[in-house]
Amino acid sequence: MKENCNSLNLLEMAAAPEPELLCIFGTGDLGRSLGFRLLQSGYKVVYGSRRPHSCGPLPQGAQVMTHEEAAKSADLIFVCVHREHYEFLTSIDHCLQGKVLVDLSNNLKKDIYPEANAVYLQRLVPKATVVKGLNTLSAWALQNGLLAGKQVYLCGESEEAKQAVARMATKLGLTVLDKGSLSAARELENFPLQLFPDWRLPLSIALGLTAFFFFYLLIRDVIYAYVEKNNDISYRIMVSLTNKVCPIVALIMLSLCYLPGAVAAFFQLYRGTKYRRFPNWLDRWMLCRKQMGIVALGYAFLHAIYTFIIPIPDPTCYNIFTMKKNKTTPFDFDNTEAWGTDSFLSLGILGFFLFVLLGLTSLPSVGGSLSWREFSFIQSKLGHLTLFICTAHGYIYGWNKFLSSSTYKWYTPPGYMLCLIVPSVVLVLKLLLLLPCVDRTLTRIRQGWERNKPKENAGEIKLNQP
Amino acid sequence: MKENCNSLNLLEMAAAPEPELLCIFGTGDLGRSLGFRLLQSGYKVVYGSRRPHSCGPLPQGAQVMTHEEAAKSADLIFVCVHREHYEFLTSIDHCLQGKVLVDLSNNLKKDIYPEANAVYLQRLVPKATVVKGLNTLSAWALQNGLLAGKQVYLCGESEEAKQAVARMATKLGLTVLDKGSLSAARELENFPLQLFPDWRLPLSIALGLTAFFFFYLLIRDVIYAYVEKNNDISYRIMVSLTNKVCPIVALIMLSLCYLPGAVAAFFQLYRGTKYRRFPNWLDRWMLCRKQMGIVALGYAFLHAIYTFIIPIPDPTCYNIFTMKKNKTTPFDFDNTEAWGTDSFLSLGILGFFLFVLLGLTSLPSVGGSLSWREFSFIQSKLGHLTLFICTAHGYIYGWNKFLSSSTYKWYTPPGYMLCLIVPSVVLVLKLLLLLPCVDRTLTRIRQGWERNKPKENAGEIKLNQP
Amino acid sequence: MKENCNSLNLLEMAAAPEPELLCIFGTGDLGRSLGFRLLQSGYKVVYGSRRPHSCGPLPQGAQVMTHEEAAKSADLIFVCVHREHYEFLTSIDHCLQGKVLVDLSNNLKKDIYPEANAVYLQRLVPKATVVKGLNTLSAWALQNGLLAGKQVYLCGESEEAKQAVARMATKLGLTVLDKGSLSAARELENFPLQLFPDWRLPLSIALGLTAFFFFYLLIRDVIYAYVEKNNDISYRIMVSLTNKVCPIVALIMLSLCYLPGAVAAFFQLYRGTKYRRFPNWLDRWMLCRKQMGIVALGYAFLHAIYTFIIPIPDPTCYNIFTMKKNKTTPFDFDNTEAWGTDSFLSLGILGFFLFVLLGLTSLPSVGGSLSWREFSFIQSKLGHLTLFICTAHGYIYGWNKFLSSSTYKWYTPPGYMLCLIVPSVVLVLKLLLLLPCVDRTLTRIRQGWERNKPKENAGEIKLNQP
Repeated sequence: MKENCNSLNLLEMAAAPEPELLCIFGTGDLGRSLGFRLLQSGYKVVYGSRRPHSCGPLPQGAQVMTHEEAAKSADLIFVCVHREHYEFLTSIDHCLQGKVLVDLSNNLKKDIYPEANAVYLQRLVPKATVVKGLNTLSAWALQNGLLAGKQVYLCGESEEAKQAVARMATKLGLTVLDKGSLSAARELENFPLQLFPDWRLPLSIALGLTAFFFFYLLIRDVIYAYVEKNNDISYRIMVSLTNKVCPIVALIMLSLCYLPGAVAAFFQLYRGTKYRRFPNWLDRWMLCRKQMGIVALGYAFLHAIYTFIIPIPDPTCYNIFTMKKNKTTPFDFDNTEAWGTDSFLSLGILGFFLFVLLGLTSLPSVGGSLSWREFSFIQSKLGHLTLFICTAHGYIYGWNKFLSSSTYKWYTPPGYMLCLIVPSVVLVLKLLLLLPCVDRTLTRIRQGWERNKPKENAGEIKLNQP
Repeated sequence: MKENCNSLNLLEMAAAPEPELLCIFGTGDLGRSLGFRLLQSGYKVVYGSRRPHSCGPLPQGAQVMTHEEAAKSADLIFVCVHREHYEFLTSIDHCLQGKVLVDLSNNLKKDIYPEANAVYLQRLVPKATVVKGLNTLSAWALQNGLLAGKQVYLCGESEEAKQAVARMATKLGLTVLDKGSLSAARELENFPLQLFPDWRLPLSIALGLTAFFFFYLLIRDVIYAYVEKNNDISYRIMVSLTNKVCPIVALIMLSLCYLPGAVAAFFQLYRGTKYRRFPNWLDRWMLCRKQMGIVALGYAFLHAIYTFIIPIPDPTCYNIFTMKKNKTTPFDFDNTEAWGTDSFLSLGILGFFLFVLLGLTSLPSVGGSLSWREFSFIQSKLGHLTLFICTAHGYIYGWNKFLSSSTYKWYTPPGYMLCLIVPSVVLVLKLLLLLPCVDRTLTRIRQGWERNKPKENAGEIKLNQP
Repeated sequence: MKENCNSLNLLEMAAAPEPELLCIFGTGDLGRSLGFRLLQSGYKVVYGSRRPHSCGPLPQGAQVMTHEEAAKSADLIFVCVHREHYEFLTSIDHCLQGKVLVDLSNNLKKDIYPEANAVYLQRLVPKATVVKGLNTLSAWALQNGLLAGKQVYLCGESEEAKQAVARMATKLGLTVLDKGSLSAARELENFPLQLFPDWRLPLSIALGLTAFFFFYLLIRDVIYAYVEKNNDISYRIMVSLTNKVCPIVALIMLSLCYLPGAVAAFFQLYRGTKYRRFPNWLDRWMLCRKQMGIVALGYAFLHAIYTFIIPIPDPTCYNIFTMKKNKTTPFDFDNTEAWGTDSFLSLGILGFFLFVLLGLTSLPSVGGSLSWREFSFIQSKLGHLTLFICTAHGYIYGWNKFLSSSTYKWYTPPGYMLCLIVPSVVLVLKLLLLLPCVDRTLTRIRQGWERNKPKENAGEIKLNQP
């Protein structure tokens, strides 16, 4: 009999917690997806709709009522309608007394209304407590359950209301950040209107570099040929010129991605401590290293495709053709040159391969499955190796052209020389940091050692001791 | 002393909740992985096995007993054995009184048994309460903890039993959908036997298009040459013909992926409201846009590899060879033609690059980390740009062949002309939708505005007001 | 009035659970990220710092105090400082009475200290209870919330202390595995120092194969030409030789990835049961199949890039050039040979395409979204198809060279012959397993049927029945 009792207890316990009822105003994409996810998380959901009898397909298990009836039945109401339609709430004002209204709305453009949507909503329905938040969620992410660990923001006047919403959000797997009072609502509403804010700086740098090198090479290659030799080779802009600009920008972006790390290390060495903040520009730079690397990979990928499509007429290949036709010995070409060309190609291929590997570990699901040592091994060791190989690829390209005067058309150095400056600097700095004496000091600093241990602070700890 | 007290309280609280004990019948892959995950989530696990002393490696911390002993110790029993072996349960019938049996079994084929496994199980052990569910989980996903947000289905006669299982599943990070009584068990058992149900339609369309264009081009290229010129160029089927079919299907699939969006917009414009459901075919079409896009990317990827392997003999490249041999001026070819070829290549490369970018943002982990505006920017703006570039790539390919009569072998247009029809239509429709007046109306409709606001419904809201 | 009451109740409930206060010693990367994540999960966080007034940017909402004050305020203290700085804890010893200290520290190398960090910490502060754990988390993963389902380890003497930490970790979305007493601390500290432990075996095999085939082909191709024909073609090492080694290793690794599955099936067939453990070497081999496949994909990717860069001078392509120059009929070459070359290319492309598809489904986020049947379809059916196509690609490469004596320089077979052995064996074994009679038996065995049902065990079940 004991077993039976156990079972019944279990079932009673399971039956105990009555699911909480939440209300959603609006049956659009966002409303539907939010309801779907809430039902999945064990809530009961009721929709408030203008036309409860003809409002399209809703998630299985949800009820539909008029706005008024729905509002009466729940305490937490998600407002998933556009700001333009908020007026209807004034007419059901009496049912909203003491309710928590969560404003999920976003606008199409920044600052098109004098006041934030949530502030407007609070003004319309002063009896209710408005919480702005969750507006960064997309219907797509809700529908597909891609919420785990995602960060959402809340703001509002009432701490209790915010906590109620936060509990719900935590149950959906979201992490919540409180941004304070309702005056932060405008900031929250501008949030989802930002388009790739982290990518702005890296993309601007990349585009700036692209424009500069495009015009530089246009002048050197196309305009020079037209002016000096009267040849119209403008068609080269599309393929040949682009395939020169892409690798140049890719290499510079890659080295810019490893430069701030080296600069930061020298800052720490110079200061003799890791406890002082870096200058703002360095902090900002270090935060967009990942994006810089991915932009560099994009350019490298373009370079690779261009090269695949228009293969370099390398001596080996060229010889196969001439050999077959002229029946002469195939080895009348310079062996050193063949080594150069083939090393050039091999380094390029290897560099691209490692670069793609770096890119793969930047995927959230791959990077998240690595331990910190694996991640740092890949991003630091493998990253510097990639930079080294790609730089060597560039040096070999121009190995026998550096001293020839014909290379310097109109007294300007060719593009590949310019693009080697930054990577070389980064590699030299990194090499200096790898010197045993420097490396030992740096490791100690990063473990908390300080060259000039401040007297008064060390004392502070002592003084605090009873 | 206060601190100590606090600490003790904390520890007492922590010690309080005794972990629940769950039982698993079956020590195969699924049983082992499920046990592993349950132990991870804080449950205690006991296995029931035919041979408790020789049943292979089990997760650390789990106990093994005979079926009978295991059944007695827990209230929730997971049945991870094949249907063929259910008979043994009748012999331990007396220990299963009032227990909840969760049937996770699947069959190898659809409908090979007259009744669903769960129904059969309930008939065998009428004293227990059978819940069918969790059968869509793979041992692999359980082992690797890839459960967060995954949807599982439950069905069964007893609400309490289902809630007990649902609580456990929620603790594993799963989201649970109740499918009703045990009569839904067959549906649930057929679920994991479906192979890529969302991909069926896009793949059929792609294969249909592939077959059509393959035979169309076979007739035009190979059979035409054989019949009219008596040339056997059948070997071209493998590379040259395939590399014509792939881009054609890729472009059509890509445009079919953006066509339903445009059609839906015209539906909304015509109806003057967004509150009426689209026809079923359009709904179905819109749901498989992502899959269509990925299939199109697959074809584009094949096209790219084929082109990399067999480079197009473009004039620039060709000239390098002749130039080197004949020592003539390298610029005796048509500059316009060179522009055409190079633009063709550049557009193709750029289109492929953007296409790969679109594909990357379709990865669950990447797409999930974008805000709704970023996601819609990429999938709509960048998607249409990709379509435009790829279509231009197609137009330039045939730019000087449209009016030549030799193009129309046996009075049939070449494949690349046929494949440009759908993308051109999509782009024209999209262009119409971008006209300021149309765009403004559409935006208002999508924000809930209605041209013919139904009188009676507007009234309904009014009438409801007290 | 009823509504109002409800609302108030809701708000009261929400306000009830006062967030727990946790203390973090150390304001470095790890301390900051951990505090950020704890705040996100609803805890209150206080930092203990040497210099509370100048310790850099901390997560919003956290307090900073001296170590002593911080220790007094909380019961659970995370020690995020390097082992070198543990001494300061002895000076605040009196505040640590009864507290739980969580040691998250890692060392830079294995076994550089005589005792584990956690044991050392416990010795320094005997009044506190030390729990070692969470040390596998990276600051990066904490910062980005990539914790869902991640496994962490704990060890310590006190069960209560471990449970308190486990509850916190579960709240962060981690899954916890208890590794026993503090003597396991060294094992836990060595854990994050491992670099890709699962990848060690596959990478060693791949590097071994690479080295063997590199020297084998070096002798056959380069040294043979130098010795016998006095030609220095050493430049070929960089591109031509590498592009022979890569596909060979890729194909062997891919077949090694499917061989253990076939061997395991034959073991089961021979033994007539699935309930006996495989030998250890087979278990180990089966566990690294995924890594082997990914390494193979890496080599295949390199092979593809090499081939894209240096296109094979195939007859079609070659003919285009001669045709254009000599104005002769383009079809004076062997049609069979053209079929061979084109099939060779097409199979290679198709094989690579399927290989990339296999690789994509190995991404955690993609693989996790498949049902078990879809996953096994892709990894088994599609995997074997890929192996078959790649093997056929290899056979066609050497189709007309197997019987020519000039192929066997210095009486050694060429590399592509050697590399076809293992894949052929795997395919023949798989073919045998697909024979209806074998397949039927195997399916029954995998569903639990046993050829020689052990008498005594079957009896055991019977005997147990009352």
